[in-house]
Amino acid sequence: MLNPELISLENQVFRCYLGWSAILILKIFAAGIYTGLMRFFTATFANPEDLMSPKLKVKFDDPNVERVRRAHRNDLENILPFFAIGLLYVLTDPAAFLAINLFRAVGIARIVHTLVYAVVVVPQPSRALAFFVALGATVYMALQVIASAAF
Amino acid sequence: MLNPELISLENQVFRCYLGWSAILILKIFAAGIYTGLMRFFTATFANPEDLMSPKLKVKFDDPNVERVRRAHRNDLENILPFFAIGLLYVLTDPAAFLAINLFRAVGIARIVHTLVYAVVVVPQPSRALAFFVALGATVYMALQVIASAAF
Amino acid sequence: MLNPELISLENQVFRCYLGWSAILILKIFAAGIYTGLMRFFTATFANPEDLMSPKLKVKFDDPNVERVRRAHRNDLENILPFFAIGLLYVLTDPAAFLAINLFRAVGIARIVHTLVYAVVVVPQPSRALAFFVALGATVYMALQVIASAAF
Repeated sequence: MLNPELISLENQVFRCYLGWSAILILKIFAAGIYTGLMRFFTATFANPEDLMSPKLKVKFDDPNVERVRRAHRNDLENILPFFAIGLLYVLTDPAAFLAINLFRAVGIARIVHTLVYAVVVVPQPSRALAFFVALGATVYMALQVIASAAF
Repeated sequence: MLNPELISLENQVFRCYLGWSAILILKIFAAGIYTGLMRFFTATFANPEDLMSPKLKVKFDDPNVERVRRAHRNDLENILPFFAIGLLYVLTDPAAFLAINLFRAVGIARIVHTLVYAVVVVPQPSRALAFFVALGATVYMALQVIASAAF
Repeated sequence: MLNPELISLENQVFRCYLGWSAILILKIFAAGIYTGLMRFFTATFANPEDLMSPKLKVKFDDPNVERVRRAHRNDLENILPFFAIGLLYVLTDPAAFLAINLFRAVGIARIVHTLVYAVVVVPQPSRALAFFVALGATVYMALQVIASAAF
């Protein structure tokens, strides 16, 4: 049976998951706000009703806006699955040291990913490294959850 | 320790989260179905195997289809994080009155967002207002979760 | 009150949800990796810093890359909501036989969806069928959750 203390603020693994999840949600939203700001700075609006001046036309190909949108989409592809699998992984009662460092790895790697992708463009392989650190940690959690479900 | 009654249908806060989450999932799916219908109405298909007639060609730039796709993507960026943070927020045992009204604010604002974005286009700032009401409520929940995890 | 055994590996419904969720997370990530591989095979890179050779230019319209990206986005639109509603559905204490087969239907249908969309293109209605099987099962879960929250 599930130990009810697993989903508890007294469980430091759950607490770590809770904190990093909330930080990453703010990070996703920051990418959304940053897209909006970039649209203003570059006057790149996708909808006629958003145009600030009658002289503007809708525009879809500003490279700065598209870069932030790619970073944002990459967050959806990688961070949103982490929210689900991180919680399920906590429920498998993992070793605290490992679990906490996996959560930190995902959190820090995804923040670095956005910084080197959309804020200050850093040459590769910086973005690829940040991507694969977070991916590797999340895949490991998924495999542990599958092992728990199967045995 | 977590009060096991937090995740219970007898906890009206959890119950409210449960109901609005399920409604918003149907809302996201409605945007998907609406995209499909719009593709049929405008004969805008992205894949060769979807073409209904040999006279049609794949097409990616119909403004009506693209508008619904933008509304749908905005849902993914904002509603999916809410599912995660809403549940974690329930676990912090918030005051019922505040929590219930935050869930209602997110639910209603996101439905309004889709209506004014993709169903009947209403001039700004209607869409911006709906966007920021939902965003503000979700950010508040994330900050509360971070405070719970940190102290 | 919630039966704490619902969220337990001894509850076969939760266990089934756990296993299929983890498999579907790996499936989403597989679509991401597949996009990356397809970018290499077709030399289609969206960012200047990703270009492997000074002769290459950024490119956004390779049909193979765009097809995988559409399949990947469809996963985000349909599988991520399933993670949320599947967990909430488990908490409504559904009949085991039905719930387990709904989870299997979603899991298998979404894997088939990716295969016929992005790996080996199979004529319609194969993709539409896979899409609607998973959608129907998820909508049913959402309706059951709404009924539980309302009564």
